[in-house]
Amino acid sequence: MPSHPVEEITSSASWSLVEDKFSPYAKETLAKLITFVNEECVPAQRVARAQLPTDPEKRWKTAIPIVEELKTKAKKLGLWNLFLSKAHYPEFGVPLTNLEYAVMAEILGRASPLAPEACNCSAPDTGNMEVLARYGSPEQQKQWLVPLLSGEIRSAFSMTERFVASSDATNIQTSIRREGNEIVINGHKWYISGAGDPRTRVHLVMGKSDPSNQNTYLQQSVVIVPADTPGVKVVRPMCVFGYDDAPEGHCEIIYENVRVPLSNLVLGWGRGFEIIQGRLGPGRIHHCMRSIGAAQRALDIMLQRVTDPSRKTFGKFLYEHGTVISDIAKSRAEIDMARMLVLSAAIQIDKYKAKGALKEIGMAKFIVPSMALQVVDRAIQVFGAEGVSQDQILAELWAGLRTLRLADGPDEVHLQQIGQRELKRAPALRKQAEAAKKKETELFSKYNIKAHL
Amino acid sequence: MPSHPVEEITSSASWSLVEDKFSPYAKETLAKLITFVNEECVPAQRVARAQLPTDPEKRWKTAIPIVEELKTKAKKLGLWNLFLSKAHYPEFGVPLTNLEYAVMAEILGRASPLAPEACNCSAPDTGNMEVLARYGSPEQQKQWLVPLLSGEIRSAFSMTERFVASSDATNIQTSIRREGNEIVINGHKWYISGAGDPRTRVHLVMGKSDPSNQNTYLQQSVVIVPADTPGVKVVRPMCVFGYDDAPEGHCEIIYENVRVPLSNLVLGWGRGFEIIQGRLGPGRIHHCMRSIGAAQRALDIMLQRVTDPSRKTFGKFLYEHGTVISDIAKSRAEIDMARMLVLSAAIQIDKYKAKGALKEIGMAKFIVPSMALQVVDRAIQVFGAEGVSQDQILAELWAGLRTLRLADGPDEVHLQQIGQRELKRAPALRKQAEAAKKKETELFSKYNIKAHL
Amino acid sequence: MPSHPVEEITSSASWSLVEDKFSPYAKETLAKLITFVNEECVPAQRVARAQLPTDPEKRWKTAIPIVEELKTKAKKLGLWNLFLSKAHYPEFGVPLTNLEYAVMAEILGRASPLAPEACNCSAPDTGNMEVLARYGSPEQQKQWLVPLLSGEIRSAFSMTERFVASSDATNIQTSIRREGNEIVINGHKWYISGAGDPRTRVHLVMGKSDPSNQNTYLQQSVVIVPADTPGVKVVRPMCVFGYDDAPEGHCEIIYENVRVPLSNLVLGWGRGFEIIQGRLGPGRIHHCMRSIGAAQRALDIMLQRVTDPSRKTFGKFLYEHGTVISDIAKSRAEIDMARMLVLSAAIQIDKYKAKGALKEIGMAKFIVPSMALQVVDRAIQVFGAEGVSQDQILAELWAGLRTLRLADGPDEVHLQQIGQRELKRAPALRKQAEAAKKKETELFSKYNIKAHL
Amino acid sequence: MPSHPVEEITSSASWSLVEDKFSPYAKETLAKLITFVNEECVPAQRVARAQLPTDPEKRWKTAIPIVEELKTKAKKLGLWNLFLSKAHYPEFGVPLTNLEYAVMAEILGRASPLAPEACNCSAPDTGNMEVLARYGSPEQQKQWLVPLLSGEIRSAFSMTERFVASSDATNIQTSIRREGNEIVINGHKWYISGAGDPRTRVHLVMGKSDPSNQNTYLQQSVVIVPADTPGVKVVRPMCVFGYDDAPEGHCEIIYENVRVPLSNLVLGWGRGFEIIQGRLGPGRIHHCMRSIGAAQRALDIMLQRVTDPSRKTFGKFLYEHGTVISDIAKSRAEIDMARMLVLSAAIQIDKYKAKGALKEIGMAKFIVPSMALQVVDRAIQVFGAEGVSQDQILAELWAGLRTLRLADGPDEVHLQQIGQRELKRAPALRKQAEAAKKKETELFSKYNIKAHL
Repeated sequence: MPSHPVEEITSSASWSLVEDKFSPYAKETLAKLITFVNEECVPAQRVARAQLPTDPEKRWKTAIPIVEELKTKAKKLGLWNLFLSKAHYPEFGVPLTNLEYAVMAEILGRASPLAPEACNCSAPDTGNMEVLARYGSPEQQKQWLVPLLSGEIRSAFSMTERFVASSDATNIQTSIRREGNEIVINGHKWYISGAGDPRTRVHLVMGKSDPSNQNTYLQQSVVIVPADTPGVKVVRPMCVFGYDDAPEGHCEIIYENVRVPLSNLVLGWGRGFEIIQGRLGPGRIHHCMRSIGAAQRALDIMLQRVTDPSRKTFGKFLYEHGTVISDIAKSRAEIDMARMLVLSAAIQIDKYKAKGALKEIGMAKFIVPSMALQVVDRAIQVFGAEGVSQDQILAELWAGLRTLRLADGPDEVHLQQIGQRELKRAPALRKQAEAAKKKETELFSKYNIKAHL
Repeated sequence: MPSHPVEEITSSASWSLVEDKFSPYAKETLAKLITFVNEECVPAQRVARAQLPTDPEKRWKTAIPIVEELKTKAKKLGLWNLFLSKAHYPEFGVPLTNLEYAVMAEILGRASPLAPEACNCSAPDTGNMEVLARYGSPEQQKQWLVPLLSGEIRSAFSMTERFVASSDATNIQTSIRREGNEIVINGHKWYISGAGDPRTRVHLVMGKSDPSNQNTYLQQSVVIVPADTPGVKVVRPMCVFGYDDAPEGHCEIIYENVRVPLSNLVLGWGRGFEIIQGRLGPGRIHHCMRSIGAAQRALDIMLQRVTDPSRKTFGKFLYEHGTVISDIAKSRAEIDMARMLVLSAAIQIDKYKAKGALKEIGMAKFIVPSMALQVVDRAIQVFGAEGVSQDQILAELWAGLRTLRLADGPDEVHLQQIGQRELKRAPALRKQAEAAKKKETELFSKYNIKAHL
Repeated sequence: MPSHPVEEITSSASWSLVEDKFSPYAKETLAKLITFVNEECVPAQRVARAQLPTDPEKRWKTAIPIVEELKTKAKKLGLWNLFLSKAHYPEFGVPLTNLEYAVMAEILGRASPLAPEACNCSAPDTGNMEVLARYGSPEQQKQWLVPLLSGEIRSAFSMTERFVASSDATNIQTSIRREGNEIVINGHKWYISGAGDPRTRVHLVMGKSDPSNQNTYLQQSVVIVPADTPGVKVVRPMCVFGYDDAPEGHCEIIYENVRVPLSNLVLGWGRGFEIIQGRLGPGRIHHCMRSIGAAQRALDIMLQRVTDPSRKTFGKFLYEHGTVISDIAKSRAEIDMARMLVLSAAIQIDKYKAKGALKEIGMAKFIVPSMALQVVDRAIQVFGAEGVSQDQILAELWAGLRTLRLADGPDEVHLQQIGQRELKRAPALRKQAEAAKKKETELFSKYNIKAHL
Repeated sequence: MPSHPVEEITSSASWSLVEDKFSPYAKETLAKLITFVNEECVPAQRVARAQLPTDPEKRWKTAIPIVEELKTKAKKLGLWNLFLSKAHYPEFGVPLTNLEYAVMAEILGRASPLAPEACNCSAPDTGNMEVLARYGSPEQQKQWLVPLLSGEIRSAFSMTERFVASSDATNIQTSIRREGNEIVINGHKWYISGAGDPRTRVHLVMGKSDPSNQNTYLQQSVVIVPADTPGVKVVRPMCVFGYDDAPEGHCEIIYENVRVPLSNLVLGWGRGFEIIQGRLGPGRIHHCMRSIGAAQRALDIMLQRVTDPSRKTFGKFLYEHGTVISDIAKSRAEIDMARMLVLSAAIQIDKYKAKGALKEIGMAKFIVPSMALQVVDRAIQVFGAEGVSQDQILAELWAGLRTLRLADGPDEVHLQQIGQRELKRAPALRKQAEAAKKKETELFSKYNIKAHL
């Protein structure tokens, strides 16, 4: 029955739903990507980790050799910048729809963060490239987008602030002000992903340029700050459940009287909110699909473990114990449903742009990480101590997925937005219910029934 | 953006996924059905209940007037026997795919059990008609299928046994044996849906005709038993959480030396298992889609209640309290995901027959009722006492959905089957993992790294 | 090891916690009660149901014979009015603490509603007797309390209103006003438990006597209304998941210009809120303990079923399948924890009156019904169709427990109150944290460490 | 109302349950401990972390200065070796019951692992000291127990094996064999807690001395191995979600032809199983109570955060958003119930030794870590990025608690055991049910009712 290798990885049913929406080019690229990820990236994961120095200084000054080699291979294979859709970015993009890339993002997520980086499809670079491609001036594109697209440099998006409840973006405190022909930036950020990487040459910094503007959505601007600008102080790497995620890292940064030329302003004064909104839509889908890939991979290695004869206890395979079989069945169903939710969001983006897919994106954002956490947690449980160790990918996956429930808007924000959106259906429903009630009353009367209305 | 009324009911995203698989006829039929259910069936639900006598005898001898009227209307509108796909039953069917009918079954589920019966699409008749259409002799079809298709009579499928763990069908005790030109049936069944209905004229009875056959799947046969055959004793109506579901009911029945002619055997001796397997596949999908319709309707009335100004407490709308908004958001996402799961199962059936969709059908079977129960339970909670009362549909919906977790195989059986099915992926995964391990070892060696393999 | 029969029923650990707080009288009474419930009430449950007429009229006019016999037996055995603590009601009560009765209430809950009624310990009578014992005038006590205590008559508490969000008691609409020497009552109530019973002779009616009082907690009064007063119209029995719970029932009642003498006012004008608050504290604990008894009984019959050789499927006992063993283990732990929570609340009431136990009562209120529902649901699942039928007690238990999540304040109200109560700990915690921070800063300085404070 | 500072920390209700079981000495010690932990240990937590070198070598060779100072203080205050009950160990113990220490272990858990170590109450030393106190020869006690009790040295318990499913202890592969007057040990262990610490001088090693013994519970022995014995190779530190937990660590160790004198055998040949059983009972309770302390602390800092005015979003305190209040209420109730479960287990141990408390210990083992994980996870969620960082204790707590679901027997093993234990109640219940059925039949007959038995 299977017609494409993706069916062995994802469930055949979800492929059935979307197969006829894939171009021949996309199908072929997907097949190549599967081979590349399974045969090149998966075996390289522990190698890459071993190539990272343990020395607390050196680990932040290293480009990992095997990653660089894989980048070269991926570029040759045409598995490069797959995230950038030609439909939206005719100049720079590849001829893939959001749906087609979404399926590929899942494959990349099977060996995250290695595979996404190898294919130049890793956050935060992808979002930054989209910002520069959509909103950057030709000058900005030449200087920063081109080397990002070629994988020569990396980048950071500097938004979250240390002492601020920045899940409400209007709380942001960083000051961005004009002084003559320069922009002066002062602020205290943290959890700025990628900022630790020696290859990171540029920060896109979000701050307040017009804090007294009555419209709180016009107070922010985004400015391009070269990483080596005087006043940019990377204070320390922040951890995520004990992981520093070197060399990229998630850094605390103080911007102290950082000065850049006026031309480093992106899009225009007060348009920061517009930029982050545009940046987040497809990005959230990519995060979600990579998370689904992570969950699927966790299920796959769980299946291997529970059927491993050397792991029998009390004379039985692990799968013969307790709730293992039913955990597997639930994981299978939960992954499949979440995948279809995200794919439906991708189709909506293809049809109506990100704005027309806000509901699906929002649902995916609060559904997928929790689902993936649960699947990974079940896998950890069957692995015992090894499950929480550096010898398996599970604990690291878990930490990253847990953080996704906080990043780009915590679950609560998205639940709130989707709930409010549903409430908007109430007036029409109430009207319809009134009509039905009227009809019902007529019927009771017609049949001469005394009702307790 | 919306292009079809179904988008207002279901989520637009899931419609996006399947819209291009709908024929113009299906789209038009669906639109008519939505109007019929919303404008005719919903207002008739409480009327139908009021037309049912409270007298413990009479309620089992009544054809409810408004139901009969709605049947006539539905037939005129071409909303009749929609479940029977012409592709599979060229002689009797309507030109709808399983996918197309699945979406319609959701609409019917919004006013269940009234709407399905009005459109001659209610269990157990649908399954019985499929059995007769697929396996019945021309004689059997003429005598029983034709009046069932026209809605003149109703039917029962007699399988579950009172003192037997019949979720394992091989445990069935009812005896079916040949005696000359007759078949003699003895057995004790219960929870036989529809058997209380005065319009029910025929039982399809499952029992053991060859109990000593070494192949436990060849021991059973199915026999057609007219309801008025001597020896068929309907003992009492069984309840479901206090509901007797009159006039259909779920009855305890004793078959005592019931004799029917040999020609009443369906398909052949020992083919009972084959028949129930064929019967259950699409039937489970229909149950699931009706359940999704029930969940969607529950969410809809929940939205009405929480925005009702007359239901404010402590100065706030109900939606402003506690976890209501987040319950709504979760319900929205859970319904959408479950719907896509079932629709993907329907597509698989259309592509590969029920046998090629066993995984998706099994997942839907254990996912959907639990999901719908949760949504209905949340709705009950915002309604307070009214939520558990006869004035709302919620408590009755709940009872029916809870029973679905037991009927046609309890959740546990399906979890077990899907889990086992996933385990079959393990050998290939283990092989792939070995290849990756080998490659990894080579890489460690190439880079001269001492690894803790 | 076991020293008292209660250890076989409850878990020995919780008995360990409270054993030394039991008087010899209480221990002896408890032992008698266990025998009475197990040997007299449990076998009578289905008999009582069978003695209830199915005729929709007669079922509301019947005192069930076996119930009346059991009442006589219980009275003789000294198992009567156990709920009324002598410590609080020296004139009427029995010498039992709240803790001691709480354990007995669990035993009663094993055969609810039969056993509580047999021992004159059933709601709403218990709460009404407490109200009359605490707040009633000698006249009122003579007329209503004495026959209630002797089990001659029954009673109703009339609070919930049909078209009102009455989980916020200040929303209540029923009007209670003085007219000369009379009180005139007009209102529309529903779900008034016990009001259908032919033995119910009196309603305690809550309504607004001073709707314009600025203090919303002084607007209500409670009035004694004999059930046969002109203007008291019992409209219909309301259902709970299909059950009408005849003969007690939960009725819709219209009070239309009902007139009673001034002396029927309880406690005083405007003191209605005070009365319901006093009524609810211990009452909620009793409900909770009966629910724990129900859960424990459900677990007990689940244990019987899963070890029943005649219920094997696929060659295995039910307990050998899927998640059954782990469901049992979880149920065991959840029951034990919930029991200790309620017992700790009872101890708090004994020590500090109901006011000093509000936190524990509130927690028990939102924890116990959900816990019991889960245990009962798991039991239903192993019983299959029989689990939802009238042949087992499970479905009926479920319906009653589900209603407890709505009655006497829905879960949400209690969650909110307990959450708010916890928030009050925050200021002290913040002060403590500041002191710790100061000390920490000193330590960093002492050790000459540069910290990222 | 509060009579002891512990009431401010734990809930007053659980204190009510056990207060009268506390000696004056225990009450006084508890009060001192609360002050010590809150005022000395909590402020020292981040200091201790800062004093740990980041250098990958040095961090394993350091005794953290502030920890050593706190040990001196605790010893002076009489807060030392509180875990060792005089009742069981008259020679070495302190006059505290298991119950009394359990409450103290919760307090220690508020600042874990610092406070337990400061009071010489940290695993695995506590278990090892119990083993030596109970089973050690006078010689062994003098050499190893005395310096452990004084806090001079630390120790490891070497059981889990790398390539073995060692949750089934009979799978253990390490070989322990006699060779003349020596014992020779060969094996491959990992996740050996404490083995990285420079102060750790001794390993208790579990292995197989009689692998062909037909009784699989007599195959194991435990041997004392000084950490500096030739052949003891600490391969590497293992991580737990990115944490190496230096300097104690959880190490991979190869024992290669390690030779120790015969006198290093503990208790006797083949008695290894007996030793680990004796070791685990109270130890599991201590782990559980520390976990409850961790959960309580997480709730406390969650309360601080959600009421912090500087963390408002969208104009509201965090506690005014979404499900926060209800999360807090649930956390409160869940902590309280789990605490009572563990305290009831401690009382059982005091009454009947660990053997008489197996049920309560087993339930606590699978209930508490999951409960604490949920509470900590909710706290993380309100903290956003800071919640997963090194600046808060939450992520580290989470990682440790997650590991508890795997250590000392994974959840599944305990669920299975408790479930099986419940099943043993079935025969008595079935007998009781038969008697009730007989009585019921008599009653039906007496009342002349035809029942559907």
